[in-house]
Amino acid sequence: MAISHLHCLQSVRVAFPGRPSDSNNYYYGRDNFTRKGSSLVYASTNNLNRDLHLQSKVETVLDSVKWDDRGLAVAIAQNVDTGAILMQGFANREAVATTVSSRKATFYSRSRSMLWTKGETSNNFINVHDIFLDCDRDSIIYLGKPDGPTCHTGSETCYYIPVFDLLENQQDKEDKLALTTLYSLESTIAQRKGELEVPQSGKPSWTRRLLLDEKLLCSKIREEADELCRTLEDNEDKPRAASEMADVLYHAMVLLALKDVKMEEVLDILRRRFSQSGIEEKRSRNSQA
Amino acid sequence: MAISHLHCLQSVRVAFPGRPSDSNNYYYGRDNFTRKGSSLVYASTNNLNRDLHLQSKVETVLDSVKWDDRGLAVAIAQNVDTGAILMQGFANREAVATTVSSRKATFYSRSRSMLWTKGETSNNFINVHDIFLDCDRDSIIYLGKPDGPTCHTGSETCYYIPVFDLLENQQDKEDKLALTTLYSLESTIAQRKGELEVPQSGKPSWTRRLLLDEKLLCSKIREEADELCRTLEDNEDKPRAASEMADVLYHAMVLLALKDVKMEEVLDILRRRFSQSGIEEKRSRNSQA
Repeated sequence: MAISHLHCLQSVRVAFPGRPSDSNNYYYGRDNFTRKGSSLVYASTNNLNRDLHLQSKVETVLDSVKWDDRGLAVAIAQNVDTGAILMQGFANREAVATTVSSRKATFYSRSRSMLWTKGETSNNFINVHDIFLDCDRDSIIYLGKPDGPTCHTGSETCYYIPVFDLLENQQDKEDKLALTTLYSLESTIAQRKGELEVPQSGKPSWTRRLLLDEKLLCSKIREEADELCRTLEDNEDKPRAASEMADVLYHAMVLLALKDVKMEEVLDILRRRFSQSGIEEKRSRNSQA
Repeated sequence: MAISHLHCLQSVRVAFPGRPSDSNNYYYGRDNFTRKGSSLVYASTNNLNRDLHLQSKVETVLDSVKWDDRGLAVAIAQNVDTGAILMQGFANREAVATTVSSRKATFYSRSRSMLWTKGETSNNFINVHDIFLDCDRDSIIYLGKPDGPTCHTGSETCYYIPVFDLLENQQDKEDKLALTTLYSLESTIAQRKGELEVPQSGKPSWTRRLLLDEKLLCSKIREEADELCRTLEDNEDKPRAASEMADVLYHAMVLLALKDVKMEEVLDILRRRFSQSGIEEKRSRNSQA
């Protein structure tokens, strides 16, 4: 497989990773490889020196990656807030360098033999917050925030074919997203909420009762928060604290479902709060208090 | 690259996916490929028919996977509770079939040209709860629960080399796990807890104050839970509800840090509760209430 742009990196300016991705002076995308020279914006000597220094560092990191015989490594895009694996592709040197500079998850398409930035046609970019290599340095995580559904099918992630359900002939579940515990619970609660209009025989589930009775729900949230506190105040054991926290989380998530708030929105808030500098954090806290 | 066992599947019995992985009658591992016939336990005709039926289904699913020219697909192991990407390897037909039957994440080692089950030497197996294929059917997620650290270095996951930190010369952070928001926050709180003995100048951080003052912490948890409830009772807007939930979560996680309880333990409890059948769920709920 031909990888025509594999050695182009030397001639490409690389942005400081802390810079915002929309800074035109520092962005370079796939186009720059074909229109080299024409779109470069010349910065001051200081900036140039810093850029050259950074470029050399990026090359050192890229040199340390164990590219396979096709010059590729596996690249996995993961949602920084939910942990959902959004998609998996392959990356070559340029793809990683482009991701570092543009902060948009970029891959190397083996079928089209070219770089592609996820979102370049759909506008559903994956905004990369961090990049990790594994112990063998041949596998990469792009930890980022997607602008919208990642899959070309419109699905939130590309992983929605559940093998065990297929084996059990649960055809109705053929489109079941790979969800981890918190989001699987969120999905169950949302499902119960969706069934509220459907009359049910027999005793209603606890979730259904909570969804139908705001007074009961709020009294449970306050009660569970109190019980969580008492595990500390009364020096109760660890399993008790974990169990009470599970109760707090579950009941609070039922309230979130009623308010149409996703856990992802909550985690987005926490990330923004805690990625701020100490001073900003304190200021934001004081303004809330 | 020779893949000697690629077409052995027809002769191998495959377990029903719902069965526990330690059921000897149904387990087959790598050894069965070399000691075929000698270790098979003969089941009743009914069991045999069911097994053959399931085997045929597994083969249909495996036929649908788009194996590359080496007969491989990318296989990613993800922690079902935390969402952490534990490791990434490659799988061939046998590796996926073995994972389906044994429920232990199994890969194909390209360097050793053989199957390997993660944990076969370290005993740190990854117990697979679900398997997902992506839209292109050439990438696989093993969603599972690890018995211990996944990385051969003893690290919880294999992804601990942060590229942006390397570029910023933060050598002290060279071993920083790829953490998503919730676990990044948990790690920050744990760090503050670890610094409690260190005298500090200036105003302490809010987290430090909470860690040092249990009364303040518990009053905040009760207050935030109350404010979350009021977003429902007073019909406040969605951003307010999300923000209050973020407050509840953060303050409760400070308490968990004091109790040495990990969010993973809390999610483990939630998964066990909500993966139970309705009757069991109700029984477990009643016994807690």
